[in-house]
Amino acid sequence: MIYLDNAATTALDDAILEKMLPYLRENYGNASSVHTFGRDARMAVERARQQVAVALGGQAKDIIFTSSATEANNLAIKGTIEGIRKRFNNSFLPEIIASPIEHPCVIESLKHVESSGWAKVIWLPVDATGLVSVETVKTFISEHTVLVSVMYANNEIGTIQPIAEIGTVVRQSRWSRLKNADEKTVIPLYFHCDAVQAIQYSECDVNALGIDLLSVTGHKLYGPKGAGVLYARDGVPVVRQIDGGGQEYYKRAGTENVAGIVGLGEALETVAGHRDESSRLKKLQNLLISGVLETTSRIHITGHRQQRVPHITSFLIESVDGEALITALDREGIAVSSGSACSSGVVRQSHVIEALPLAGFDVRKAAALRISSGRHTQERDIQLLLQTLPPIISKLRELAL
Amino acid sequence: MIYLDNAATTALDDAILEKMLPYLRENYGNASSVHTFGRDARMAVERARQQVAVALGGQAKDIIFTSSATEANNLAIKGTIEGIRKRFNNSFLPEIIASPIEHPCVIESLKHVESSGWAKVIWLPVDATGLVSVETVKTFISEHTVLVSVMYANNEIGTIQPIAEIGTVVRQSRWSRLKNADEKTVIPLYFHCDAVQAIQYSECDVNALGIDLLSVTGHKLYGPKGAGVLYARDGVPVVRQIDGGGQEYYKRAGTENVAGIVGLGEALETVAGHRDESSRLKKLQNLLISGVLETTSRIHITGHRQQRVPHITSFLIESVDGEALITALDREGIAVSSGSACSSGVVRQSHVIEALPLAGFDVRKAAALRISSGRHTQERDIQLLLQTLPPIISKLRELAL
Repeated sequence: MIYLDNAATTALDDAILEKMLPYLRENYGNASSVHTFGRDARMAVERARQQVAVALGGQAKDIIFTSSATEANNLAIKGTIEGIRKRFNNSFLPEIIASPIEHPCVIESLKHVESSGWAKVIWLPVDATGLVSVETVKTFISEHTVLVSVMYANNEIGTIQPIAEIGTVVRQSRWSRLKNADEKTVIPLYFHCDAVQAIQYSECDVNALGIDLLSVTGHKLYGPKGAGVLYARDGVPVVRQIDGGGQEYYKRAGTENVAGIVGLGEALETVAGHRDESSRLKKLQNLLISGVLETTSRIHITGHRQQRVPHITSFLIESVDGEALITALDREGIAVSSGSACSSGVVRQSHVIEALPLAGFDVRKAAALRISSGRHTQERDIQLLLQTLPPIISKLRELAL
Repeated sequence: MIYLDNAATTALDDAILEKMLPYLRENYGNASSVHTFGRDARMAVERARQQVAVALGGQAKDIIFTSSATEANNLAIKGTIEGIRKRFNNSFLPEIIASPIEHPCVIESLKHVESSGWAKVIWLPVDATGLVSVETVKTFISEHTVLVSVMYANNEIGTIQPIAEIGTVVRQSRWSRLKNADEKTVIPLYFHCDAVQAIQYSECDVNALGIDLLSVTGHKLYGPKGAGVLYARDGVPVVRQIDGGGQEYYKRAGTENVAGIVGLGEALETVAGHRDESSRLKKLQNLLISGVLETTSRIHITGHRQQRVPHITSFLIESVDGEALITALDREGIAVSSGSACSSGVVRQSHVIEALPLAGFDVRKAAALRISSGRHTQERDIQLLLQTLPPIISKLRELAL
């Protein structure tokens, strides 16, 4: 089997699993317990917090462990909006500026706060490659904007957004608000960035990029499923969304998933050392793109040609059914995806593709195909895909006639 | 080291870890992916869902996997209140009846919904043993009560509540509401039960007990940390609190923690087979209680003498500092806890002890000591504790003078 769905999840690295195993065996303490078992677990959790803090360039006390990036993004949006509403006693309706191609967990969190009447969401336009415009972000920021939420790299089409530039715009707007006002009464403005698909191959220093809220997860970085992170800069009034004990600085209750957190810490500590993989994957990506475009007609690459992560390549294939395509490739031993994997097995038109102003063909009758490579992907895997894909597409198109 | 803090967390069972390992190694697929890797993961998740459903006597489609019991209890309370508010368009203020000795995750969730103006919480009185009165529950139910939340067994003092009787009261109230009304317009009434500390030694059949929402977690049952369950009976309008993809029947988004869920399923499948341990632990509990009461003065057992789980024994020890006691026992190689372990290492007066109408001594100057045994606890462990405890208490009392 050839696994080309690393954007859905990566294999857990053996070395990371080795680091986790003691916490699945002898070191089984609850990290909130006072005794030796508890303190051993606590030390492991705090060590992981340090690893994550170093990887993100933030402070350890600003790292909140969650169960997933989905939970982290929910906490970033709902927690911040709740905190701002409390601080300002609901005296104004907070506005959030977001891109329409965010991950479903961001989109749905935004819809949840909007339909609850807690905030107004202003959607940014994107161009055909999925890029948002920094100028538009600047224009859209009003006196009531409290949050700008733009993902670093799109999980379906791979486009990298101008994060540092957006960070600068947010910072400048914040400064200009502060110019003639008291820091305690001025409406704050924060930048939230879902960096799940970017951190593997792009540096994610929260200070360099001007990010106030950043989410990542372990299982896209050869770490375990079940552990995610929200970085929340000191001062962002994040109200916890899972109430209970005082874990995670009172920002996320629940017994710590010690082994998961240990694995996440290791994944983030080792991620930078693997970033030189980027050029190798870029070559494979170029091989894939040119190969597919040469051999197959009526196929369109989605996302930006240059500003894209090296591991995600995606196409729209006219007159082909997406689910049939994935299933046929699977039968040939190649695991890929149709858009994202985050809607529990239901293949439908992706909100990302829908948001792109594409022209020249009927997008609704095209299949989305996402090929996402990883640390284990070799050139022969791409070659095999390039051999396998054209006859399948031909056959599916014949069947569709 | 002797581990007597099984109510905080249990050791992960080796056999359960073995079942998890394939999902930490070769079967690394995302359970929402369509291809073979994804389907393997999906099958594992659905198998676990069946195991949990069988253990709880419910239907598989009513099982929602979460990251912890804390998250499950948050979802039960906030999700149900949000669902009811939506259904009735905020036309009345829902009331919740709850005991004041619930786990912090229940207490804090209740406070969160109350302080947000979404519901009113009516607190039940408890007697000195921590028992709630079924009659009082009945009296407190008003036409606007939508939820009764009472835990099965208390995590600090071990008292078992009359759950089946409360279930009957809730059902009868629901029936009487339905008598002269249309099912679609009548205000619903549900019974939520945190069964985390009970399920190990008590049967938890949701139909036999009349429970509509039940939460459990794996790591108190020799399963892994990072996986919990909310059982939500078909029809309870639980609105998801973590938004995103369509996982868990649209009731909890986020990439499934496959290995954790597999471990949780195994833990729940095997829990019933270990319930005969109950009588062995009851003997150890009796030995512990009589031994402690014989050797130490000014020590009081907390909780109910008969209606208690066999693994949790707790005392209040006059004129002793709780943290010093735990630390001293830890130095002697015995891991116990002062109340619960769920407040991130901070030993403070427990809300459970505070809620009990105790008399005859100054509770504020007494140390809470919780000894929780488990599958691995032997008589010699209890004997050693009985030898170690009295001299430590004497010494701490001398120091306090």
